[in-house]
Amino acid sequence: MHARSKDLAQFFSPRSIAIIGVTRKPGAFGGGTFLEKLLECGFQGNLYPINPKAHEIQGVKAYSSLLALPETPDLAIVSVAAHTVPEALEDCARAGVRHIHILASGFSETRTKEGLELEERIVSVCERNGLLVIGPNCMGPYCPSSSLTAWGAIPGMTGPVGVISQSGAMTQRLTEYLCSLGVGVEKAVSMGNAALLDSTDYLEFMGEDQKIRLIAMYLESVKDGRRLLGLAREIGKEKPIIILKGGESEVGAKTVISHTGSLAGEQRLWEAFFRQTGAVHVRSMNEWVDSILALSQLPAAKGNGVFLVGGGGGNSVASSDTCIREGLDVPLLSGATMEKMREMVPVAGSIAGNPLDTWRTYDDPEYLKRILELGYKDPRVSMVVVDRLIPRAAFHGSGRNHATPEIIEFVKARQQGKPTIFTVDYDGGDPDLTSRGMTLRAELCRAGLPTYPSLGRAARALAHHYRYHARFS
Amino acid sequence: MHARSKDLAQFFSPRSIAIIGVTRKPGAFGGGTFLEKLLECGFQGNLYPINPKAHEIQGVKAYSSLLALPETPDLAIVSVAAHTVPEALEDCARAGVRHIHILASGFSETRTKEGLELEERIVSVCERNGLLVIGPNCMGPYCPSSSLTAWGAIPGMTGPVGVISQSGAMTQRLTEYLCSLGVGVEKAVSMGNAALLDSTDYLEFMGEDQKIRLIAMYLESVKDGRRLLGLAREIGKEKPIIILKGGESEVGAKTVISHTGSLAGEQRLWEAFFRQTGAVHVRSMNEWVDSILALSQLPAAKGNGVFLVGGGGGNSVASSDTCIREGLDVPLLSGATMEKMREMVPVAGSIAGNPLDTWRTYDDPEYLKRILELGYKDPRVSMVVVDRLIPRAAFHGSGRNHATPEIIEFVKARQQGKPTIFTVDYDGGDPDLTSRGMTLRAELCRAGLPTYPSLGRAARALAHHYRYHARFS
Repeated sequence: MHARSKDLAQFFSPRSIAIIGVTRKPGAFGGGTFLEKLLECGFQGNLYPINPKAHEIQGVKAYSSLLALPETPDLAIVSVAAHTVPEALEDCARAGVRHIHILASGFSETRTKEGLELEERIVSVCERNGLLVIGPNCMGPYCPSSSLTAWGAIPGMTGPVGVISQSGAMTQRLTEYLCSLGVGVEKAVSMGNAALLDSTDYLEFMGEDQKIRLIAMYLESVKDGRRLLGLAREIGKEKPIIILKGGESEVGAKTVISHTGSLAGEQRLWEAFFRQTGAVHVRSMNEWVDSILALSQLPAAKGNGVFLVGGGGGNSVASSDTCIREGLDVPLLSGATMEKMREMVPVAGSIAGNPLDTWRTYDDPEYLKRILELGYKDPRVSMVVVDRLIPRAAFHGSGRNHATPEIIEFVKARQQGKPTIFTVDYDGGDPDLTSRGMTLRAELCRAGLPTYPSLGRAARALAHHYRYHARFS
Repeated sequence: MHARSKDLAQFFSPRSIAIIGVTRKPGAFGGGTFLEKLLECGFQGNLYPINPKAHEIQGVKAYSSLLALPETPDLAIVSVAAHTVPEALEDCARAGVRHIHILASGFSETRTKEGLELEERIVSVCERNGLLVIGPNCMGPYCPSSSLTAWGAIPGMTGPVGVISQSGAMTQRLTEYLCSLGVGVEKAVSMGNAALLDSTDYLEFMGEDQKIRLIAMYLESVKDGRRLLGLAREIGKEKPIIILKGGESEVGAKTVISHTGSLAGEQRLWEAFFRQTGAVHVRSMNEWVDSILALSQLPAAKGNGVFLVGGGGGNSVASSDTCIREGLDVPLLSGATMEKMREMVPVAGSIAGNPLDTWRTYDDPEYLKRILELGYKDPRVSMVVVDRLIPRAAFHGSGRNHATPEIIEFVKARQQGKPTIFTVDYDGGDPDLTSRGMTLRAELCRAGLPTYPSLGRAARALAHHYRYHARFS
């Protein structure tokens, strides 16, 4: 029997949290860190540090045991030494605490006899007592709308994304990364060894969560492949599922064993999984974020024809190559479009067509709007990529006027049905370029217009976006 | 007969430059921009703006024609309307000016009958008079050690790189990008339509230039494929040649015609070219820069075994996958190494091995040094990748102490024969993260230690580095 959705909901909206194993010594990572972060992020419910020797920790009244608490907490975070975790779980059962996040590590991921046995004991205690457990060896649940952002991305920002991950570091980085670009996370869970609740349980739960419109997963392994396949197939029709699969190589797969004590599974089985479900398969943190930006914010694309708007002949050539390599098309524009475009684009130093190469798009917002309008009206164009230039010492006077608010307003009003994204190249070691470029990128992203630091990353994200909608829209 | 090296040298160290076609109106791109930039970058030689109607432009005495100059300039930059370029070249011939950079565009790249004819006339005038021409339709020569940095990357920085490019924008971006990461450019040339001097002429020249240790090329086409093959084969043995090939896709190839009026050539011929020469084939600006960093700064790699040092289990798994995907190996460490490592790495929350996952490497420089020493001594390790973490709101207290100077000193002293690179992930929209990450990356790069913003980019660059040396070292 699988955990039911209402059972899991409590993990993400606890009104009270006990933290079992909080030392008075500041600094070391553990229960104390969670207490500190929950206080910092303004968690509204009751917090109960459990420490048999302390009366108060970080200004919060401490309790000697779970049984001494004035209420039954909605959630317990277990952060004691591995060998005492089974005992802590027995305490939870006695105190009537059913929702438990085991932060502690030292179980199957250690590949030691002791660690494996301890994990078996955890499973047995929990099954016997009907306890629901996230972990062990993980960062647990995250839900900004409940002020449950104990891993520190402050302010947490709610939004359309659900995250299910076998890696705490990846979950933390992803939530922070998305948040910095204006895409909020409704719920996330770092599930570690997933000794009891597995990715499929969280997937089913997030599939039913109306606030979640897209699910991002970092998976190293899965216990019930058939169930994952069935769920991904069903949920994927409604919500894009974007999966970063860890352990694809032999070495990666070996590392998986050390990381979460699980088996990564055969590469060809995963390939079949992606083929059969239409889940989006990404291969790095950046590709993960890039695809989430596109699939959470853009309208469905009706075709794979991209209109490339920018400047610099060599750039245009390389950009076309990149799009084609990613499975997109850079179509010839229609006769009517070309006729109007030739009137607008000088013969020398520019190239009318697709890609469009004319520096004036960087400087003159009215001109850029007229150009974009041509693309939006051309039936051969399904998506638009607009390059934005940061003024550089190496270039001559271009990019002085981004007129970003004006362009944002225009694209948001006009793009209907033709996903429009931006590229801003600010890589390198020039602080001014980096700061301006990052700011412009974030400004566009936060306005709901996905913006990428390179055409390569933009094209990959658009290709994922197009293929998802070609299959399910 | 090919242009001889001493003939080309004068392009890069002119003691006097005439700029034919400088308007008094500021702002518009053209000869005036070059005059402005040459003044800005402190060009030491004489500058002669040519304008029949002006006495002075930008504070510099102007002349009515080339023949009115007090000396024969070493270089003429031609920036007049396309149809008057042949006449300007006749003037050059009469005045004894042999080295000419045609900035003007409006020739074969326009695909018009007029443009094609004009380019033919240019070729004919130049051949008849023995003129050496860079261009037309290009940004021309660049040489920081001669203060010839007219496209504005101020201060230009000299170094081991030579750049040959059919795109001005790509050349400008590359030189600025490298310079911002502490890798200087000895000479660069943006050659545009290459109506007379072709990539092979510049390649031969830079092959003989003792100051140039690595040659970066952006090529859309080549006139004499056989000569390019022969030169690349010979020069490539001594100096890595890193080529970004534009026009690999059909659409890209069409854009090439509009950009520089040339034919991109068949993809399979280029594939054979790369196979036969061992030239490094890159596919984006970032990959170009990333490979140049590695191949210009790192010692030769003796094998493809990488030791990955970092933290975050999921990261470690994904990093292994990425390295393997790029053709690198992430070998098991030797028994002796593992024995020592197990004493240093805690069992819970960390993973001893390769990849090594232990957060302490971020905080404790002495510890990191001991870890690196293990890798340097292990015969199975040929290269090392060290992840550096920027303190993030989402993480708990790691990365507080980068101790960068200490680590830099250690790696530079110790890495002998085992190329060591760094990764710093600072992507996203958080200004503080970006600014610290970019600064740390630039600091490491400028110290001669290639540093990349993602493991994916690092692994690709290392793979290029390894393969080059496997073939030629």
